[in-house]
Amino acid sequence: MNLDELAIKQHLAWNGKLDIVAKAHVNTKEDLSIAYTPGVAAPCREIAENEEEVYRYTMKGNTVAVVTDGSAVLGLGNIGPKAALPVMEGKCVLFREFGGVNAFPICLDTQDTDELVKMIIALAPGFGGINLEDIAAPRCFEIEQRVQEALDIPVFHDDQHGTAIVVLSGILNALRIVKKERQSCSVVINGAGSAGIAIAKLLYASGFSNITLCDRAGIVSSQSPRLNDAKREILRYTNLSDRSGSLADAMQGADIVIGVSSAGVISPEMVSSMNDDAILFALANPIPEIMPDLAKSAGARIIGTGRSDFANQVNNVLAFPGIFKGALEGRAPRITERMKLAAATAIASLISDEELREDYVICEPFDPRIAPTVAEAVKANIEE
Amino acid sequence: MNLDELAIKQHLAWNGKLDIVAKAHVNTKEDLSIAYTPGVAAPCREIAENEEEVYRYTMKGNTVAVVTDGSAVLGLGNIGPKAALPVMEGKCVLFREFGGVNAFPICLDTQDTDELVKMIIALAPGFGGINLEDIAAPRCFEIEQRVQEALDIPVFHDDQHGTAIVVLSGILNALRIVKKERQSCSVVINGAGSAGIAIAKLLYASGFSNITLCDRAGIVSSQSPRLNDAKREILRYTNLSDRSGSLADAMQGADIVIGVSSAGVISPEMVSSMNDDAILFALANPIPEIMPDLAKSAGARIIGTGRSDFANQVNNVLAFPGIFKGALEGRAPRITERMKLAAATAIASLISDEELREDYVICEPFDPRIAPTVAEAVKANIEE
Repeated sequence: MNLDELAIKQHLAWNGKLDIVAKAHVNTKEDLSIAYTPGVAAPCREIAENEEEVYRYTMKGNTVAVVTDGSAVLGLGNIGPKAALPVMEGKCVLFREFGGVNAFPICLDTQDTDELVKMIIALAPGFGGINLEDIAAPRCFEIEQRVQEALDIPVFHDDQHGTAIVVLSGILNALRIVKKERQSCSVVINGAGSAGIAIAKLLYASGFSNITLCDRAGIVSSQSPRLNDAKREILRYTNLSDRSGSLADAMQGADIVIGVSSAGVISPEMVSSMNDDAILFALANPIPEIMPDLAKSAGARIIGTGRSDFANQVNNVLAFPGIFKGALEGRAPRITERMKLAAATAIASLISDEELREDYVICEPFDPRIAPTVAEAVKANIEE
Repeated sequence: MNLDELAIKQHLAWNGKLDIVAKAHVNTKEDLSIAYTPGVAAPCREIAENEEEVYRYTMKGNTVAVVTDGSAVLGLGNIGPKAALPVMEGKCVLFREFGGVNAFPICLDTQDTDELVKMIIALAPGFGGINLEDIAAPRCFEIEQRVQEALDIPVFHDDQHGTAIVVLSGILNALRIVKKERQSCSVVINGAGSAGIAIAKLLYASGFSNITLCDRAGIVSSQSPRLNDAKREILRYTNLSDRSGSLADAMQGADIVIGVSSAGVISPEMVSSMNDDAILFALANPIPEIMPDLAKSAGARIIGTGRSDFANQVNNVLAFPGIFKGALEGRAPRITERMKLAAATAIASLISDEELREDYVICEPFDPRIAPTVAEAVKANIEE
């Protein structure tokens, strides 16, 4: 049985990957009168008087909404909210299994930005955090920003920030091996969608200053065709010399190249043109921008992908369960750059100097230390 | 410790009455690749091709949204979506504990009818049914109707229909004792809010033809002040002779009186003016329209209340878990009058002729036969 067949068989057996269970069991009339009417009126009154009390009397503080409009699901594209549900349930499973966080899938049947913003804001009273998932760019940027501005709970588009955090953690460890400083590294990011832009922003925030973003048309510059607001904003941090050119031009002499684009777009020649001790993360899924063995023989020293069957997998599950766990426990009103940097540093730190190797700069997702360590780092860096 | 103190203490200990748990456990890389990427793409593709498949591959078919805007919570009134959360969590606990149904609280931060309708419709892809809860009248009628018209899953305002079903079940059993036929009974309902109107409709659908609805101004007639659409519609089934008068006028000679109004509004004299073998359901909570002992000494033969500490408690938990269980299992697109009647009859039938007594016309909520029996009856009566 191949993976598709196995996944179909298992999903049929599960018939839903989540269950909602009662912590409050109801076996007697008294139980009923405490968990429900008339006793339940007492905590309701407390919250009505002081709405902060909702964190003490309800599940809000440990519950995340995993919200999608089904517009950019995995590599499948705009398959709609119903077909997105297996992914959202899966995400919620990971929240529970890795972070001990309650997460519930909310698949919304609209792709209108204003409606999505309004609805997600209206949904918030029962949730301690909002994880946006698989919403197409550039809509996702505006939605995240507007929803976060309206709410005092964290709003986190994992396709952007989760990926960026894990990429940064891998790069920090790769630099430990090649002994380069981030300030002096030339970084190229290929792919100017939600992940690429978030990676650029987070790398900039963490001290990388020489970053070039490429899209299908080549280097993103002030002369680029189809500049949207998100790309325009990113030009404040990237390509500060405003050069133009192709991806191949950009990669010449680069220390670090990160692909969040599509299969096969990086050639061995491009890799060979990079600086010594080249670091290459080829994250297109399921087929990377260049296969690891090919990149290796073309001279890349440290290689990561998005796949679990190669070394150094960039897997968001390293980040989001611990990030939300920490943000919820610390009642963070938002997840700031500082908290993201702390998370990336914490993930990187789990690999000791003795363990660190070219094919082990990103730790395995099942390392039980990850979520607690990330959570503590995030909690310690909450800003008001 | 009184009930309020107990409820506060317990709610603090629970810190949320629900947990969301994984049925799909993730302990290995292979588990991860099946429950989440890349394997999860296979069921997504199946649903994208044929959206009915969502019932086989996800939790949709066994999951209900318990939706409120916090505008009419218990007897507390318009306390808002956050303060409503303990009640909604409690409701979800009852869905799980009594019906084996997954239910999740959705507390929406808007009280605009159009917005609520849009949002509830947009939320529907991940749910197999919508339980509307504690939404103020008359907004609740329009919301239920418009949402149901837009969706092919059941939409059920429990404050209306759940109450009506349990009231009808109690009346059917009361009539077995007093040996009256429903066609010949004169019924008075005091309270023209969501529950009162729903009771009137369901009683009419079940064969009661002489029904009079009263509100604070007395008998609802074509001459009543402040007639809203819902009351106007109900005049097609009730008060067919279009008489006017007070509640006291209406109750004179009545066989059955149902109060869904407020504490103390029914006097012993009014009860004494009823027909022989009077049936009185005084459902105001926590203080009934008239206390049972007082009603008894004024001549009522069969008395029900909304309280668990008196006989014949009208408790919605007798209905909604089994109704949704049956509707979900049978994939009903809506919950029709026929299904509601079947549910009421099923609940009534659980008390045998031998067991039936004046103080036992409604069974106890912990009778384990209830939800399965109701579910079977509902399933057997699904209409397309």
